[in-house]
Amino acid sequence: MTELDQHEQVNQEVEEEEDPSKRMALICWSSDLDKVWPVLILATTGAASGMEVDIFFTFWGLRVLQKSDKRITGKNWKQKGESLMDKGGADNLKLGKMHMAGMGTSMIKGLAKDHGVASPQDLIEMALELGVRFHPCQMTMDLYGLTTEDFIDGLNPVCGAAAFLDMAANADIQLFI
Amino acid sequence: MTELDQHEQVNQEVEEEEDPSKRMALICWSSDLDKVWPVLILATTGAASGMEVDIFFTFWGLRVLQKSDKRITGKNWKQKGESLMDKGGADNLKLGKMHMAGMGTSMIKGLAKDHGVASPQDLIEMALELGVRFHPCQMTMDLYGLTTEDFIDGLNPVCGAAAFLDMAANADIQLFI
Amino acid sequence: MTELDQHEQVNQEVEEEEDPSKRMALICWSSDLDKVWPVLILATTGAASGMEVDIFFTFWGLRVLQKSDKRITGKNWKQKGESLMDKGGADNLKLGKMHMAGMGTSMIKGLAKDHGVASPQDLIEMALELGVRFHPCQMTMDLYGLTTEDFIDGLNPVCGAAAFLDMAANADIQLFI
Repeated sequence: MTELDQHEQVNQEVEEEEDPSKRMALICWSSDLDKVWPVLILATTGAASGMEVDIFFTFWGLRVLQKSDKRITGKNWKQKGESLMDKGGADNLKLGKMHMAGMGTSMIKGLAKDHGVASPQDLIEMALELGVRFHPCQMTMDLYGLTTEDFIDGLNPVCGAAAFLDMAANADIQLFI
Repeated sequence: MTELDQHEQVNQEVEEEEDPSKRMALICWSSDLDKVWPVLILATTGAASGMEVDIFFTFWGLRVLQKSDKRITGKNWKQKGESLMDKGGADNLKLGKMHMAGMGTSMIKGLAKDHGVASPQDLIEMALELGVRFHPCQMTMDLYGLTTEDFIDGLNPVCGAAAFLDMAANADIQLFI
Repeated sequence: MTELDQHEQVNQEVEEEEDPSKRMALICWSSDLDKVWPVLILATTGAASGMEVDIFFTFWGLRVLQKSDKRITGKNWKQKGESLMDKGGADNLKLGKMHMAGMGTSMIKGLAKDHGVASPQDLIEMALELGVRFHPCQMTMDLYGLTTEDFIDGLNPVCGAAAFLDMAANADIQLFI
């Protein structure tokens, strides 16, 4: 190995570290419209500019992945009761603040439509097309009694917190939303 | 190039990577007093210890940048209506929890004053003086019909999610608050 | 120094950067059951897979560290009043959403028990045994008039935001929860 080769190798190693493909790992913990929006806007924006993006859907956030026409989910009365109170599906998201019995949510949805901000459903489709990886949380599925049948298509295999932390530790950006 | 030169170059590259000037990128998503406080405390603390700090003000959080004496903003009735419900300005922030018709917010503000915790307005001034960069979110401005006239002075140019992700990917700390 | 030595040194520096012991720095800002759970699940999962984990308990989140049998804390009527409204202790956490006068919280706690998800108290014990470092926030302690006497055992020394930012800037994962 000559000095020149070695020099080039060092440079290459430095360049590899600055590889342009950045990674982002998001936790979608909430099913509030005003939280799901930033998750999906950041994910699609990142993916569109070449980032690799993983989203871990957990706790209330798992409901975002539910098919919007599924009303009752779960295997026992506790889980079925919870699913009635905590309506799932990207069509049914409500603001976490100023929902005001639906008026606030409608108003913001109206403003979004007027100004060309895509709906959560459209953003989910866009994200999946752009290669964003959606990971449903195993533990939350067990808790709610949800099965993969209850979810929209195109998701990655179910995984746990350990698998997510592994993705996050190798990402350039991690956000809990 | 001698071996020694090369060795020094390698060392220099390694040192440059460990440059002491760390970077932090924060998303201020909320206009709740109890969320705006940590944003501003982390930002000023970081900047005071030599960090480069960027804050992206988006969604409800954009209202923090509004002049406190502006009551109604927006260009049409939907936007004007929203601005009435969602009062802006750092003077008017309320707790997200235990607001209790103002009583909780007053109590916490009182405690903060007694214990020398700076108010949001003071922290904003301090942050700007310390060189913290405040970025208003373009999409949210369009949504609310806000113009740069509605904002306090000293802000960075309006930008979008893609620009923010770029800052975040190169930061050592990223937090969604 | 021979070329070979130097080459090995470069390799070593690169390998050291990829040291397997990853670090995570979490901010526990909330005392809501549905936020404290993810903090503790991520912390214990990370620590169990070999990560070094620091948690900074601040604002509402500081109440999580309070002994569950302490009802009133603080040194003056403002602080005592706040402590009555904002009951502390890992036994007394309530959902931030769907608490429904206790019914929702009981239901979710019941589901968690049925599905082997550990309680916050158990997770705290587990975390401390796994070497997770719990850092109480100095400023919040002053605000609430809390003393180390009010807290559970096993905590790290009280620290401020600057110390936390230092940990966070050197961590692979930072999350504000």
